[in-house]
Amino acid sequence: MRTKTLPILFFTFWLLTTGKSVAQNQNDSAQISRLYQEALRHPAAYTWLEYLCQKIGGRLSGSPQAAAAVEFTHQVMDTLGLDRVYRQEVMVPHWVRGRAEVGRAISARFGTTDFRVCALGNSVGTGPGGLLAPIIEVHHFEQLKSLGTAKVQGRIVFFNTPMNPTYLRTFQAYGETAQYRFNGPSEAAKLGAVGVIVRSLGSSLDPHPHTGSLGYQLNVPKIPALAISTLDAEELHQLLQKDPGLKFYMESHCEMRPDKLSYNVVGEIRGSQYPDEIIVVGGHLDSWDLGEGAHDDGAGCMQAIEVLRLFKRLNLQPKRTLRAVMYMNEENGLRGGKRYAELAEETQEKHIAALESDAGGFSPRSIGISDDARGFDPYRAWETLFAPYEIRLENGGGGADISPLRNQGTVLMGLRPDSQRYFDYHHTAIDTFDKVNWRELQLGAATMAAMIYLLSEYGTP
Amino acid sequence: MRTKTLPILFFTFWLLTTGKSVAQNQNDSAQISRLYQEALRHPAAYTWLEYLCQKIGGRLSGSPQAAAAVEFTHQVMDTLGLDRVYRQEVMVPHWVRGRAEVGRAISARFGTTDFRVCALGNSVGTGPGGLLAPIIEVHHFEQLKSLGTAKVQGRIVFFNTPMNPTYLRTFQAYGETAQYRFNGPSEAAKLGAVGVIVRSLGSSLDPHPHTGSLGYQLNVPKIPALAISTLDAEELHQLLQKDPGLKFYMESHCEMRPDKLSYNVVGEIRGSQYPDEIIVVGGHLDSWDLGEGAHDDGAGCMQAIEVLRLFKRLNLQPKRTLRAVMYMNEENGLRGGKRYAELAEETQEKHIAALESDAGGFSPRSIGISDDARGFDPYRAWETLFAPYEIRLENGGGGADISPLRNQGTVLMGLRPDSQRYFDYHHTAIDTFDKVNWRELQLGAATMAAMIYLLSEYGTP
Repeated sequence: MRTKTLPILFFTFWLLTTGKSVAQNQNDSAQISRLYQEALRHPAAYTWLEYLCQKIGGRLSGSPQAAAAVEFTHQVMDTLGLDRVYRQEVMVPHWVRGRAEVGRAISARFGTTDFRVCALGNSVGTGPGGLLAPIIEVHHFEQLKSLGTAKVQGRIVFFNTPMNPTYLRTFQAYGETAQYRFNGPSEAAKLGAVGVIVRSLGSSLDPHPHTGSLGYQLNVPKIPALAISTLDAEELHQLLQKDPGLKFYMESHCEMRPDKLSYNVVGEIRGSQYPDEIIVVGGHLDSWDLGEGAHDDGAGCMQAIEVLRLFKRLNLQPKRTLRAVMYMNEENGLRGGKRYAELAEETQEKHIAALESDAGGFSPRSIGISDDARGFDPYRAWETLFAPYEIRLENGGGGADISPLRNQGTVLMGLRPDSQRYFDYHHTAIDTFDKVNWRELQLGAATMAAMIYLLSEYGTP
Repeated sequence: MRTKTLPILFFTFWLLTTGKSVAQNQNDSAQISRLYQEALRHPAAYTWLEYLCQKIGGRLSGSPQAAAAVEFTHQVMDTLGLDRVYRQEVMVPHWVRGRAEVGRAISARFGTTDFRVCALGNSVGTGPGGLLAPIIEVHHFEQLKSLGTAKVQGRIVFFNTPMNPTYLRTFQAYGETAQYRFNGPSEAAKLGAVGVIVRSLGSSLDPHPHTGSLGYQLNVPKIPALAISTLDAEELHQLLQKDPGLKFYMESHCEMRPDKLSYNVVGEIRGSQYPDEIIVVGGHLDSWDLGEGAHDDGAGCMQAIEVLRLFKRLNLQPKRTLRAVMYMNEENGLRGGKRYAELAEETQEKHIAALESDAGGFSPRSIGISDDARGFDPYRAWETLFAPYEIRLENGGGGADISPLRNQGTVLMGLRPDSQRYFDYHHTAIDTFDKVNWRELQLGAATMAAMIYLLSEYGTP
């Protein structure tokens, strides 16, 4: 009897479990297909992004445009029939650029040459008097240290380090090279430098300087720092080869003012079965001032709102609570991300997962997943659901704004779009709406929505 | 004794075969890595493309620019130290656009409205007198046929069919909708229409008309046809809603002249071990006249030459013969592709594989493979070699120019870049060099080089 019953029992069990799983899977496939189709039929994120970029524009923390962006996204989410739209107060740094910067080589042999420059974010300014000093070129910190105070004192240090072109993923090159922008000014100041010029963190040779934050170290003199376009960095390098004795004049009018009150903006759909389990999808609402903050990160914010719109439009009632969060101040302080996590801790909110889009509105290629407790393997069960959209799931990912949630055990995820063009636009005057393709943006939003759908149905797999 | 010897023999055999295969695989990985690194370090294809686009420009078959492109690519390949660079004579159609076209609605109620239009390739012109007639809008051929001669006779037919936005791959939507451009004029003429306006085959709502070939059917009157931009198609549709009685004026000065002599351009590296086994990598050298033919298909041609440059630069001696082929006249005749295959047949050349790039210079995502004899499964063995570059191999692929080789049993392959942006530029005035990103173009070239390397080493897997 055993030998006959057991196989039948097993078969029945297999049928019950596998049968259910297949049906479940088919339903998930169908829902995900609906999300993609709707996102491509009605490109709402793209339309919102046009407004955010072209009617509001660059929106540095503390600026009037940042306030307008808070109001705009609040209003947009108010039209979606969400359960709640609210703001979280957060004090943010208020750095202002002031008048256009000057970067000028003055050579006894070659006369003066003006370069395309911009102040690094958080930099002190030279003030109207400017700063004139000899300039010395270095390519890495070891070289700087080997020069020592003797050769650095009283000079402007020119960090001329190109991004490594051979990495497939441009963020890897950015990660390696951004240290010169972030730490270069203090490292140079420790040796007595009076100013810093940093080669822009751009993938291409072009005339656009890239701004971005520097970080002054404690108890080190704060010296002014400018970014120079990659093309101009090459030209300055050539000039220095021919006339190492040339002087450099830099002028910037930026300053850090007292902190200002600003906001994260949050839209919420309450979960039907597990309302206390919260899933965040977000981007950062602030941007640099030079361009329109289109790819960085208007795209991510509009995609996050699009995820909620897709749920409402398709009458998908999430089992868990979904929140679209527009984080304030990622670019020069991360105050919004930190504040959100603090408040979550204070109110004992349980965030099971957070997905950020902050790598541009380009064609999506994968979602990176950081699950400290379970690791990546369980997520492989979802891979086939993304395969029709040519999206991979991969181990490791997240985003700056959601990273403070990691302490609470939240699973962190990041949308990973194709990265080849990102560092042509990043932190420049040409990060504008026209650089975003509507299909790529909407496919990113749909990809996010698909993952949020699965998380809302199953929690983590 | 047997029981002891056999396992040892088996183990030795396993070591020999597996050991060799692992070493082989590691060597292939290393060579492919070198190809990608060199392509990203020295973007030659990008530099050549700048010249082709900006110094020569649009190069329709039979035009002076097409002749210049033949000379340019011949000269470029002459600098690479190839074993042979030569031309193949081919007679091509010589269609000329003439003066700018006019498309104008004339409404008793709303006055005149000018639209952005361009003649379809191979279309007859209206001549200087133009053509004024009532216009009728249709969305598909069934609707046209149901209208019948009664409602079509003497009118201009306006095919207003948008590309389906919901397909992930835009080429699928193009494939569905291009029938109205290609067959629309003759289908309308069969019912007595006097002219045709076709909504542009573009993914976005924008002001750029997209040209492209029509195909007149035998024994059907040839009537003139224009493409209208997608934005203008929407506007014309609105106008027709308000005034169905409006008349439309179209004027075009295009004409088909007698065939002209032109050329395919071929560069060759002779195989060291199997010189009679030929592998082709190519694109088409002609382009439409409106833009610069950057994505379509300057990109593919420069990538094909880049493949040969990479082999020479890295001292990779192919075992089989490699040819970069610049095909002439893909856009409005495919004469170059047909002639190449004819000559190959006449001279009994054995083409084992051909890889075409004619889907834009965007970030590469996969290589599609059509192997009629072996099917796709054997190629799975190569998938892991492409995985580090996030390139998939997939079943089905090729290109128009290489398709005539299929009769000879040649394996056909096509580079498949991300397709989201392609139909924003395709056949328009904005298919220009600035729309190409150097990293995306070079990654495409490296991907092609990696496949050509494997084919040259192993033939087919």
